[in-house]
Amino acid sequence: MTGEAKSQNISWHSGQVTVGDRERLLKQRGCTIWLTGLSGSGKSTIAVETEKQLVNSGHAAYVLDGDNVRQGLNKDLGFSPQDRTENIRRIAEVAKLMTDAGLIVLTAFISPYRADREAAREIFTDGKFFEAYVDTSLETCEARDPKGLYVKARSGDIPEFTGISAPYEVPNDPELIVKTENLVVDESAEQLLSFIRSCGFLAG
Amino acid sequence: MTGEAKSQNISWHSGQVTVGDRERLLKQRGCTIWLTGLSGSGKSTIAVETEKQLVNSGHAAYVLDGDNVRQGLNKDLGFSPQDRTENIRRIAEVAKLMTDAGLIVLTAFISPYRADREAAREIFTDGKFFEAYVDTSLETCEARDPKGLYVKARSGDIPEFTGISAPYEVPNDPELIVKTENLVVDESAEQLLSFIRSCGFLAG
Repeated sequence: MTGEAKSQNISWHSGQVTVGDRERLLKQRGCTIWLTGLSGSGKSTIAVETEKQLVNSGHAAYVLDGDNVRQGLNKDLGFSPQDRTENIRRIAEVAKLMTDAGLIVLTAFISPYRADREAAREIFTDGKFFEAYVDTSLETCEARDPKGLYVKARSGDIPEFTGISAPYEVPNDPELIVKTENLVVDESAEQLLSFIRSCGFLAG
Repeated sequence: MTGEAKSQNISWHSGQVTVGDRERLLKQRGCTIWLTGLSGSGKSTIAVETEKQLVNSGHAAYVLDGDNVRQGLNKDLGFSPQDRTENIRRIAEVAKLMTDAGLIVLTAFISPYRADREAAREIFTDGKFFEAYVDTSLETCEARDPKGLYVKARSGDIPEFTGISAPYEVPNDPELIVKTENLVVDESAEQLLSFIRSCGFLAG
């Protein structure tokens, strides 16, 4: 993170469309729900289910997840601590732009470091960023191993794998905790939806 | 540009919401109009006016421009050729995500190099990216000098300034050319709006 923009001679272009204009158009308020948790905890699955239910009920929502962002915007980044930090920084900046566009953004990234998540939060206006901890035990994630990554991590084929050979720092004070182990996907998504609804984001 | 994603063991998560779902919801089709031209040519002004008219007519549109992206996502980048290339690459990736979310995206960046603009186009699905050359002469831009940048560039206070001490490569075959010198802003925006309408993006 650099505190100051490297490029000088620039100024924020506020534009003529206000946040209120966008809210009235989309009949909702933009926000970002930042899901964090281990690989295999269910972040993307829950985010995608929540997105589907939002779109089906007439709301513009969008999922940013590690799988699609890593092949595009952040394809130049690996999994070292420094690259993970830059990965999260860029995603937060994109989520902020999408939130400003009025979308309900669901991000699904392991985002293992507290400092990176806090830096992401700092990028947002107050009341637009919410941390949701997808709380699934390492044992369960490893038993699920949907992409076979834990097997590769245990054998050393993947270095710096969160929970095995790299740390995961549990959120201290997330806005929401979804304990997935006794829930089906619909129930986990409903917890997110209830939260989003209760915050008033589904009204323009 | 790296051809291959640095991070392995990832796969595109297609999600359950289709492009068609988003088009029906927003009653429009996502696309990116990539404005290119000299500093002071009118890119941001035209983009912002077009955005306003789109939103006022019920369409979800969003402007990405150098002024706001440079303070956030790309604040680590300067104006060297290498940094300009990375600047454009990241913006194109973000515009692609926003286009996928169903938005009509207007980008307003000098983007002086043909190769960078072509690389941006390559990031998109066919028929979703359109280059609009904001054709304003250097003399007019320098006479306007809305931010006083040309004066600083001429005095050497700003190095590598497009048109003065760094090249601008005129588009060979843009989808649209807006010759601003004999137009008021509304008329320039109307050319963009007519183009967007004629491509069918304003119907779901």
